Amino acid sequence: MKKQIAVILGDGIGPEVTQQSIKVLDAVAKQYNHEFTYVYGLMGADAIDKTGNPLPDETLNTCLTSDAILFGAIGHPKYDNDPTAKVRPEQGLLKLRKSLQLFANIRPVNTYSSLQHLSPLKAKNLEGVDFIIYRELTGGIYFGKKETSPDGRSATDDCTYSTFEIERIAHLAFQHAQKRRKKLTLVDKANVLETSRLWRKVVQSIAGDYADVTVDYMFVDNAAMQIIVNPKQFDVVLTENMFGDIISDEASVISGSLGLLPSASVGSDVALFEPIHGSYPQAAGKDIANPIGSILSAAMLLDHFGMKVEADLVRSGVEWTLQHGFVSKDIDAINCYSTSVIGDLIRDFV
Amino acid sequence: MKKQIAVILGDGIGPEVTQQSIKVLDAVAKQYNHEFTYVYGLMGADAIDKTGNPLPDETLNTCLTSDAILFGAIGHPKYDNDPTAKVRPEQGLLKLRKSLQLFANIRPVNTYSSLQHLSPLKAKNLEGVDFIIYRELTGGIYFGKKETSPDGRSATDDCTYSTFEIERIAHLAFQHAQKRRKKLTLVDKANVLETSRLWRKVVQSIAGDYADVTVDYMFVDNAAMQIIVNPKQFDVVLTENMFGDIISDEASVISGSLGLLPSASVGSDVALFEPIHGSYPQAAGKDIANPIGSILSAAMLLDHFGMKVEADLVRSGVEWTLQHGFVSKDIDAINCYSTSVIGDLIRDFV
Ligand SMILES: CC(C)[C@H](C(=O)O)[C@@H](O)C(=O)O
Ligand SMILES: CC(C)[C@H](C(=O)O)[C@@H](O)C(=O)O
Repeated sequence: MKKQIAVILGDGIGPEVTQQSIKVLDAVAKQYNHEFTYVYGLMGADAIDKTGNPLPDETLNTCLTSDAILFGAIGHPKYDNDPTAKVRPEQGLLKLRKSLQLFANIRPVNTYSSLQHLSPLKAKNLEGVDFIIYRELTGGIYFGKKETSPDGRSATDDCTYSTFEIERIAHLAFQHAQKRRKKLTLVDKANVLETSRLWRKVVQSIAGDYADVTVDYMFVDNAAMQIIVNPKQFDVVLTENMFGDIISDEASVISGSLGLLPSASVGSDVALFEPIHGSYPQAAGKDIANPIGSILSAAMLLDHFGMKVEADLVRSGVEWTLQHGFVSKDIDAINCYSTSVIGDLIRDFV
Repeated sequence: MKKQIAVILGDGIGPEVTQQSIKVLDAVAKQYNHEFTYVYGLMGADAIDKTGNPLPDETLNTCLTSDAILFGAIGHPKYDNDPTAKVRPEQGLLKLRKSLQLFANIRPVNTYSSLQHLSPLKAKNLEGVDFIIYRELTGGIYFGKKETSPDGRSATDDCTYSTFEIERIAHLAFQHAQKRRKKLTLVDKANVLETSRLWRKVVQSIAGDYADVTVDYMFVDNAAMQIIVNPKQFDVVLTENMFGDIISDEASVISGSLGLLPSASVGSDVALFEPIHGSYPQAAGKDIANPIGSILSAAMLLDHFGMKVEADLVRSGVEWTLQHGFVSKDIDAINCYSTSVIGDLIRDFV
C-alpha cells in the first residue's frame, strides 16, 4: 500500500521521539512492501518561532491531503508563564483538531507486568486493568467563546455541547465497547452542569441501540477517585473534552510511565496519532526521552491503515525491549538506553 | 463560650454521621464549659421530599443567624439519573454556598500510618504527604449562566471569574502557606482557558505581597498525575471550583478512605463544616458509615471558634480509635464497629 503521512515534529522532545517512529515505520514498509512518504509540517512553538503562526496554512494543507498525521508534542514554558501572550503553541494543535474534525481522542490504558514496580499504585490495584478512554476533542470549554472584559478584571469561557457532537463520539465509544467487555461508563457532572445533563440524556437515548452494552454513569469527582481505587472496573470510558483531559492524564500514571502511552484522534478522513506526553522541554535534544509513546502511536496509525499484522509486530517489538530492560531513563535511571538506541532496537526487531 | 450551631443532617448517611459529631461536641461543651445549642434545618433531597424546595428559606435564615454550620451530605440517585429533573438536591448546597459567600473550601490531605495498607498508593509514595487544597467555591462554571436551546439540542454552561473572586481566596491561601511550608501551587489550564489566564495573572500579581512563599503553576492535567505520583511535593494547592472538585476528590483516596476526610467552607461570617464524602445512599440507616469525616469536620469547627485545645482533643480521640482498631466497615470489613459505637468511643475519649 502507498500512504502519505504528514509528520509534525513539534516542540521539545517531539522531534527526537517522532524520528524513532519513522525509523520503525520505514522498517515496516520495507518488510511488508508498503510505500510510506513523509511530508513535514510545522506546528506549535517551533512554528511560532519560524513563522509567527502556531499552525501555518501549509501545515494544515499538508495534513488535509495526507492519509494520516504523526505528531510529536507541543508547548513551551515561555508561553505558559505569560498569561498575556496573544499567540500560543497550543492554539496550533487546537486549530488542527478543529479543522480536521478530530472529535474523538482515544487513549488505551493498560499495564506492563515488567513495569509494575514503577506504578505508584499497589500491584493488587493494577491487576487486570485494561480500559480505553474516549475523550471528546473538538467541543466544550476548549472551543467555546473566550472573553476578557475591557478592564481586564473578568474573564469568561463558554462550554457548549450539541446533541450532534455527543452522538457521534458516543456511537464510536459504544461500537468499541461491543468489541470489548461491553461496558461503557459516561463520566460527567450532571448534578451541576447543563451540558452534562445533555450528555446523559443523549447517551441514555442511544444506549437502546446497543442493548448488549451495559452503561453506567459516574460523576467526574467520583471517577477521579475510582480510576485510582478500582481501575479494573472500567472498560470504555466516555467523556467530554475538559474532563477527558484531566482523567486521561490521571489514568496514564497507572502504567508507571507517561512516556509509554499512545493516543489516536479520529473524526473525519485523516486521523492523528501522538504520544500522550507533553513536550518535556528539560529533556529536549538530550536523546533521553522515552520513544515508546510515539512508537505505539505509530502502531495505532498502522491499525488505522488496516495493517493489523504490522501494528502487532511493532507492539511486540516494544514489549520485547521492555522485557529485556532496553528502557529509557524515565523507566530505569541507572541502566538506561538512549532514545535513538531504543528506536534502533525496535526497528531491528521489525 | 456560647455558640449556636446550625445542623443540616441532609441525605443518605448524612444524619447518622452528623449525630456522632453532635455527641462529641456535647462532650466537649461539658468538659470545657461551653454552651452549644443546635438549630436544625432541612436541605437536599430530604428538603425536597418534605417541602419541595432543596433549600427552604427557614434553613437559610437559621444558617445566617448561627455561629457555624455542621452539614452531613447531599444527593440522591433518583435525581442523578433523571437529566430532566428541574429541582435537584445539589441546588440547595450550591445556593447555601452562594448565599453565605462561602468562597473557599479548605480540604486537608494527610495520611494515617495505621491505615497505610488501605491506600491504593505504595507506601513510598505516601510518606510525608501533608497538603491542603483551597478550592474556590462560589464562582466558575458551577454558578455561570446555564442554558438549553429551545429545541433541547444544545446546552451551555458559562465559566466566569473576576479578579475580586480570585484575589480573596488567593490571599487566604497565601496566608495559610506562610504558616506552613511556604509553598503555593496554582492549578489551572492557562494554556487553554481565558479564566485560567486571569487566575495566573492575579496570583502572579499578589505573589509579591508574600515574598516568603514560593509559587508554582501547574496545568490541571499534570496536577491530576502529580497528586498520585508525587503528592509530597504539595503544600498549599489553590484552584478554581471545577478543578478543585475533581482534584480534591482524587487526593482524598491517598489517605486510604474517603470516609476520614473533613472540610471547611469559609468566606463571610458563618462557616460550614462537612465531611467530603457523599450521601452514600446504599449505606443509609445501617449504622455502618464512617463518622470520622464528620467528627474531624466538627474539630475544624472548634478550631474556627478559636477552641484549639478542644479541637486537638477531638483529633486525638480520632487517632486513638484508628490506632486501636475501632474502625468502621470501609476500613476493616471484618473487624468493624458501628457508626454509633465509634461516635461513643470518641465522645468518651473527650
Ligand atoms: C496541549 C494541550 C492543549 C492538550 C489539551 O489540553 O488537550 C494536551 O494536554 C492534551 O491532552 O492533548
Ligand atoms: C454535591 C456536589 C454539588 C458537590 C460539588 O460538586 O461541589 C460535591 O461534589 C462537593 O465537592 O462538595
